[in-house]
Amino acid sequence: MELYSGHINRLIEELAALPGIGSKSAQRLAFHLINMPQDRVNRLANTIIDAKANVKYCKECFTLTDSEVCPICANQKRNHNLIMVVENTRDMTAYEKTGKYEGVYHVLHGAISPMLGIGPNDIKLKELMVRLKDDVEEVIIATNSSLEGETTAMYISKLIKPTGVKITRIASGVPVGGDLEYIDEVTLLRALEGRVEL
Amino acid sequence: MELYSGHINRLIEELAALPGIGSKSAQRLAFHLINMPQDRVNRLANTIIDAKANVKYCKECFTLTDSEVCPICANQKRNHNLIMVVENTRDMTAYEKTGKYEGVYHVLHGAISPMLGIGPNDIKLKELMVRLKDDVEEVIIATNSSLEGETTAMYISKLIKPTGVKITRIASGVPVGGDLEYIDEVTLLRALEGRVEL
Repeated sequence: MELYSGHINRLIEELAALPGIGSKSAQRLAFHLINMPQDRVNRLANTIIDAKANVKYCKECFTLTDSEVCPICANQKRNHNLIMVVENTRDMTAYEKTGKYEGVYHVLHGAISPMLGIGPNDIKLKELMVRLKDDVEEVIIATNSSLEGETTAMYISKLIKPTGVKITRIASGVPVGGDLEYIDEVTLLRALEGRVEL
Repeated sequence: MELYSGHINRLIEELAALPGIGSKSAQRLAFHLINMPQDRVNRLANTIIDAKANVKYCKECFTLTDSEVCPICANQKRNHNLIMVVENTRDMTAYEKTGKYEGVYHVLHGAISPMLGIGPNDIKLKELMVRLKDDVEEVIIATNSSLEGETTAMYISKLIKPTGVKITRIASGVPVGGDLEYIDEVTLLRALEGRVEL
């Protein structure tokens, strides 16, 4: 049974295909969009098209940016011999927000996942190896602490080891302000294994 | 601090302005949109513009539809003397899904809410009164069981009473399959007040 008219149904289908938007939210969004003033609808549609057309990979680190080289890679004050490997641009931004990291990044755009059929060639790994030819001192692996993130970290570490470049992995443990009572066992064990001397 | 490039930031802002999309989901969606194939991006943007351009109010019941008169109002098998008043097109669809309602609808596009500054003139109430001039036998008020929905129901009932048309309100009570233990007190009292003889 077609519940709504053709144009509304097509809009709901398009919206429901986006990540994190279920069928109920898609209906709500569709009616919101239809009720929005014409200029705001045009602006939204054009912003989507413009972003798709103008955002590209940084030639150096492969983050998504408007320019050929992203502002971080273009900044000569950053340490270009220190590369932090992250899964995506959002993770890179999370570290940038700390304001304490002085090096540059390398964005993989994914993580190795045999479950989802994502192999080493599906992420920007070859591109990372190419960058190692320069005077890189250390590669910090900051993939997520998930199964895929850990698999990717192990894979990269094995790949880089023979080149002699120093490789490190960000620490895994109890989050700051975390109450031990509410933290899962795997994290607690990880925090124990990774304990540091005071 | 500008965390992302201009085009990405603008897209995130546009998305975060939509209902039910917070700043984290907006970021996730923005990167998803940028990574989508070009043809899917164009299709989404065009679907939004097309829906806005082609969807209009039904001349009779004011639901959102592609045609001048919606399929329900155009259907001569429906009882055009029985009008169910709902707040929006989604609520109308909820009743259509039951497949048991034989009458037509009237969509208010909102509910009276002094808190939000929405008065009787901001919803399709005058349009409902115009329809009452025909041979209408009964008006069923199916606004939500919220403060705004109840206020609107009371207002409509006072407005229609003098015309002599029969007015009813959908029942309020314990939902089917609902466990009394988990149902709020107001609903329990409402169910008690509305008890029917067996």
